[in-house]
Amino acid sequence: MAMMTFKATTKKVGAGLNVESESRGFKVTLDEPLELGGTNKGMNPMELVLCALGGCQVIAFSAFAEQKGVDLQDIWAEVEGDFDPAGFMGDFSVRPGYSQIRFKLHIKSSSPADKVEEYVEYVEKICPVGDTLKNTVGLIKTDVVIEPSEKACCSSCCCCGGN
Amino acid sequence: MAMMTFKATTKKVGAGLNVESESRGFKVTLDEPLELGGTNKGMNPMELVLCALGGCQVIAFSAFAEQKGVDLQDIWAEVEGDFDPAGFMGDFSVRPGYSQIRFKLHIKSSSPADKVEEYVEYVEKICPVGDTLKNTVGLIKTDVVIEPSEKACCSSCCCCGGN
Repeated sequence: MAMMTFKATTKKVGAGLNVESESRGFKVTLDEPLELGGTNKGMNPMELVLCALGGCQVIAFSAFAEQKGVDLQDIWAEVEGDFDPAGFMGDFSVRPGYSQIRFKLHIKSSSPADKVEEYVEYVEKICPVGDTLKNTVGLIKTDVVIEPSEKACCSSCCCCGGN
Repeated sequence: MAMMTFKATTKKVGAGLNVESESRGFKVTLDEPLELGGTNKGMNPMELVLCALGGCQVIAFSAFAEQKGVDLQDIWAEVEGDFDPAGFMGDFSVRPGYSQIRFKLHIKSSSPADKVEEYVEYVEKICPVGDTLKNTVGLIKTDVVIEPSEKACCSSCCCCGGN
């Protein structure tokens, strides 16, 4: 299989912090809760990261269970992550991202427990989102495009004062 | 501000690879496309990671623009990430996660371009999802709970053969 490239776009929904992200036509609404300055129309991006990890664990476990000879009747995941909001608020001595993410799996299976646990360890090794989080990723800002402003701007105009 | 802990849960939706992740009552449907063994009812977890990054960039940019004196009329983000599916398929010589994620911002503003770009760099430094991706995160599996199976299992039963 060749390398794959996944894509997504995010746009604002009105003023404030409400945005919509989209990938392959599928959309997710994001916002911040009221206490973090948003209008609480959706989960926030850090919560979405946890949803991605739980989704990846459950999907990966489901994908190869039969091939690995593990009976799978059900699986669900609980995920939680700690971060210090001081970093987001501009304190550069604190990392703004997650310092730790924990997950707990619940598995309903008639297979022997040691076989299930061995398969859990296998899934941990091949989980794409898990690997993306626990190891570093090359994150590159390729471009910043300043789009034409709707407000004409000059150094002495009456409407915007050059800002 | 004290440390914060965000939470999410993921559960299967029927058989196959279709799952639902949830955080604070907000839900997102995940699946894989047909060619990756799913039923294409939603984006996949790796695409969701890109949605989280785009969402975080746009929300963070929106959150502090006024405070930083940057006029913000609109902003949108394009995000893409490369990964080699061989890792997910069990080739341990290949990392299963993203090797690189790129993002491009489009900003509509009447502020001077250099001021906008300076603010973009600030947002890069404080973006929680960006930091989570580009740096390592302590990822801990706290527990695997083997839930009671719906199928009674014994070493000699007729229905499951002890599997």
